[in-house]
Amino acid sequence: MPDQLVEVTAPHMDPEEFRRAGHAVVDWIADYWATVGQRPVTPSDPPGTVAAALPTTPPTTGGEPVEAVLADLDAIVVPGLTHWQHPSFFGYFPANTSGPSVLGDLVSSGLGVQGMLWATSPASTELETVLMDWLAHLLDLPQRFRSTGTGGGVIQDSASSATLVATLAALHRASGGRWRDTGIDRRYRAYTSTHGHSSIEKAARIAGLGSDGTRAIDVDPDTQAMLPAALRAAIEADLAAGDVPAIVVATIGTTSTTAVDPVPEIGAICAEYGIWLHVDAAYAGAAAVCPELRWSHAGLEYADSYCFDPHKWLLTGFDCDAFWVADRAELIEALTVLPEFLRNAASDSGAVIDYRDWQVPLGRRFRALKLWFVLRWYGAEGLQAHIRSGVRLAERFADQVRADDRFELAAAHPFALVCFRLRADDDVNAALLASVNATGRVHLTHTRLAGRYTLRMAIGSPQTTATHIDDAWTLLATTAKDLLTP
Amino acid sequence: MPDQLVEVTAPHMDPEEFRRAGHAVVDWIADYWATVGQRPVTPSDPPGTVAAALPTTPPTTGGEPVEAVLADLDAIVVPGLTHWQHPSFFGYFPANTSGPSVLGDLVSSGLGVQGMLWATSPASTELETVLMDWLAHLLDLPQRFRSTGTGGGVIQDSASSATLVATLAALHRASGGRWRDTGIDRRYRAYTSTHGHSSIEKAARIAGLGSDGTRAIDVDPDTQAMLPAALRAAIEADLAAGDVPAIVVATIGTTSTTAVDPVPEIGAICAEYGIWLHVDAAYAGAAAVCPELRWSHAGLEYADSYCFDPHKWLLTGFDCDAFWVADRAELIEALTVLPEFLRNAASDSGAVIDYRDWQVPLGRRFRALKLWFVLRWYGAEGLQAHIRSGVRLAERFADQVRADDRFELAAAHPFALVCFRLRADDDVNAALLASVNATGRVHLTHTRLAGRYTLRMAIGSPQTTATHIDDAWTLLATTAKDLLTP
Repeated sequence: MPDQLVEVTAPHMDPEEFRRAGHAVVDWIADYWATVGQRPVTPSDPPGTVAAALPTTPPTTGGEPVEAVLADLDAIVVPGLTHWQHPSFFGYFPANTSGPSVLGDLVSSGLGVQGMLWATSPASTELETVLMDWLAHLLDLPQRFRSTGTGGGVIQDSASSATLVATLAALHRASGGRWRDTGIDRRYRAYTSTHGHSSIEKAARIAGLGSDGTRAIDVDPDTQAMLPAALRAAIEADLAAGDVPAIVVATIGTTSTTAVDPVPEIGAICAEYGIWLHVDAAYAGAAAVCPELRWSHAGLEYADSYCFDPHKWLLTGFDCDAFWVADRAELIEALTVLPEFLRNAASDSGAVIDYRDWQVPLGRRFRALKLWFVLRWYGAEGLQAHIRSGVRLAERFADQVRADDRFELAAAHPFALVCFRLRADDDVNAALLASVNATGRVHLTHTRLAGRYTLRMAIGSPQTTATHIDDAWTLLATTAKDLLTP
Repeated sequence: MPDQLVEVTAPHMDPEEFRRAGHAVVDWIADYWATVGQRPVTPSDPPGTVAAALPTTPPTTGGEPVEAVLADLDAIVVPGLTHWQHPSFFGYFPANTSGPSVLGDLVSSGLGVQGMLWATSPASTELETVLMDWLAHLLDLPQRFRSTGTGGGVIQDSASSATLVATLAALHRASGGRWRDTGIDRRYRAYTSTHGHSSIEKAARIAGLGSDGTRAIDVDPDTQAMLPAALRAAIEADLAAGDVPAIVVATIGTTSTTAVDPVPEIGAICAEYGIWLHVDAAYAGAAAVCPELRWSHAGLEYADSYCFDPHKWLLTGFDCDAFWVADRAELIEALTVLPEFLRNAASDSGAVIDYRDWQVPLGRRFRALKLWFVLRWYGAEGLQAHIRSGVRLAERFADQVRADDRFELAAAHPFALVCFRLRADDDVNAALLASVNATGRVHLTHTRLAGRYTLRMAIGSPQTTATHIDDAWTLLATTAKDLLTP
C-alpha cells in the first residue's frame, strides 16, 4: 500500500512548542493577577463591542503564534470582562479561584482523560471518591455521606445540576421505583422557601413538574429563613388535594441574604412524611470548614442529599460543586443507562463506581485534581483562614454601615455577605448602586427584601483586604451624600 | 476599630509563586505528552489501588510545594490512568485535546470569570457567540443556526446535555407553550433509532417521560441507519393511541458504527407531523470541516437543533459540545427563570444574550477561549488535515482487515471508526479484545451488531501515525492466530 504511506499531517503543537508557549501563558496569568486590582472591575462598553472587534469567520490557514492570541486577549477580551477575581468585586457570590486550583485544572486539561466509567480512567474516579471524603471530613458532614457507608460524593458542575439530580432521585423514590420507566406524575410537588435559589424551580421544570409544581414556602420576615409551620401546612394542603410531596430543598445560606433555613425542624417534617430532603449550601457550605460556623449545618443528618460549591468560596475554580447522597444505590438506580458500548468487566463486577450514573452528562473531566492541589496547598488551616478573613471583613463593613445613621443593615450577616440600604426610597438605593458601579472601582449587586431594594456586598475574593473594604465604604458613603443632598 | 486591623491572612499563592510553579506544571505536561506513547495505554491494577495509596483525610497544615503533588501524580495517579491521548488509544471515540486547547483553557482558569449573564462578563458571551458562528461557518451549517438570524449557538458540556436541552425545548413546543408552567404530559414521545445514543433515553427520562416514553426505531440491517418507514409507522401508531410525538433525534455518526441516519427523509417526516428534529452529530460533526465529508450532513436544514463535540475529534479538550438551535427565542422561553438577584439593565433591555437561559446550570466557564486558541492555531486547513489523517488511517486499517480472510469488516467506515470481527463465535472475539487490551499496547472497545460481538477501532488521536495502526493490526492478527489455533 505505498500510496497510503504518505500521511496527511496536521500542524499539531509539539511538546517543546507547548512548553515554550505554556510558559508564556503562565506568565500572562501571573501578570494579570498582579495587576487585576488596578483595572476597572467592570467594562463600560456597550453590547457588541467585543464581537465587533473580531473577524466574522475563522482563519483558513492557522499557525498564529500563541503570543498573537495573547495580544488580542489584552486588546479585545480583557477590556470586556467583569473581573471576578478583582479585590473590589463584591457582586453575586464570590467565584474564587487560586493558583493551586488553576494548576490542578491545568494538569486535568493536559492529561485529557475521560472519567465517565471507572474503567475509562480508574485514578480519576478513585481520586474523586477520596477527595469527596476529604471534603466531608473538612466540613464534618454526617457519616451517612461518606463512601465508607452507603453514601458517597461526586463532583457536579454546579449546584443547579446537583439540585436537578437530587430532584430526579427524589421522584424515583416517590414513585416507588417506577419513575425511571414510566415517567413522572404531574402531582409530584417540590418545596423550597421564597428565598430558595431559582435553580430549584428550574430543576422541577426540567424534571417535568412545571413551575406550578414548586411550592414557595414563606420565610420569617426577620430571618428570611423558611417557616417550618408553613412548610407543614403546604404539605398537608397538597396531600389533601391528592398531590404527592416528593422533595424539600432547604437552604443553608440563601442567595439574597445568606439566611439559614431551620434544617432540624424541616428535616423532622421530611422524615415524618417520607419526603426527600436536599440541602443546598452552595455558598455557605464552605463556612463549615470552620468549627465556629458549623452551627449553620445543624440537622444535616436528616438530609438525603447535600451540596456546596468549592468554586464559590473555597478557592477552587469553576466548575466544582460537591454533591453527596446518603444512599448512592438509589441515585444510581434512577440514572443508570447501560448500552453495550460502555459495558466492561469492572462495571459488571459491581466493585467500582461509575460516576456517569451520578450525573446528567455521560462524559466527565478529571476535576478532582484541582481540589487535590487546593487542599494540599492550603490544608484545613489555610482554608479556615480564608473563610475567617471573609467573615472578619464583612463584620468590618457591617460596623461601618451600622455607624452611619443614613444607612441600615437589611439582614443578618452570619458569613461574608452584608445586605444594606440607605434609609431612603428604592430609587435612591438603585441610584446609589448604579453610581458606585459606574465608577468601575467596585462592583456590587442587589436583591429585594420584602419588596424593598437592597444592596448586597459579597466579600470573599482572595485578594480583598481591609483597605478594599474601607475604600468601598468611603465610595458608598460619599456617593450617598451626593444623592441625599437635594 | 483597632482590633479589626489585625487581618487573618490565608497562605495564598502569590503571582510570582504561581509563575514558578506554573512553569513546572507546564513542563510536567510537555514531558507527559512526549512520553505518553511509551506507557501502557491502560492500567492493570485492581480497583482500589489508587485510593489505598492516598491518605484518608486531608492535611491539616498546607504549604506543600506543587512539586510534591507532581511527584504523587507520577507515583500514584498516572499509573492508574487510561491514557486517552496515547497514540494507541482506540477505544470509544477519541477525546482529543491539543496544546492550543490546553492553553486556552488555562487562560479561562486564570481569568476565573462567570459568563452566566452577558453582564457578568460581556466578552465571555460575545466571544462565544462569535466562535459558534465561526464553527457554523467551518462546518457549513445552514444559515438558520447563525446568530445573525433567529438561531444561535452555545457551548454545552456534552452532547448528553445538548440532547436534554433540545428535548425540553421540544416538549415546550409540543405543549403549546404550557410546559414551563404546567409540566409534561406523559403521553409525549421521543424517537431515535436502536443505535441512537443512550443519552437520548436518559434525556427523556430526566424530562419525566420515563424510558417507556422513548421509541427505539429499527435500523437498516446493512447500514445501521434509521428506517424512515419505521419512524413513520411508530409515529402513526402513537398518534392512533392518543400519544403526542414531541421529538425525533437523528444521528450523524452513531456510537456503535458511525452510521448516518437519512436526515432528509427523517426531516421531511418531522416537518409533516410538526415534530422537533434534533440531530446528534457528537462524533461525526467534526468531519464536516472537510467538504468531501459534508454529504453526511445532508438534510440539516430540517433540524430544529444540532450538536457536535469539538471535544471528540476536533482537538478541543473536554468539555466542549457545540449546540445550535434554529429559534433561540423558543429555547430561552422554555428555560428562563429570572430572580431579582440576576436582574440587570443589559438583560432587561433584551439586547444581549444571557447564556444561562440556554442550558441546565446557571454558572458557566469561559469555554470559548479554548476554541479560539484552537481555531487560530490550526486554521480551517489544519483541522481538515487532522480529520483527513484519521480517515486515511482508518482506510489503512480497514484494508488490512479486508485482506485477512480470518476477519471481516462489520460495518462501513465513512469516518475514522472501523468495526470488525473474527469470523468466529462471540466468545472468541471477546477473548481477542481482552487479549490485545491486556498487553497494554493498545486499547479497543466493543459493541454488538445484530447481536454479534464486534470490535471497534476508533482512530483520531493527534499522535497516532501509520506505524501505530500497523502495530495494532499486527498485534490483532498475531493474537488471532493463537486464539484460532486449537
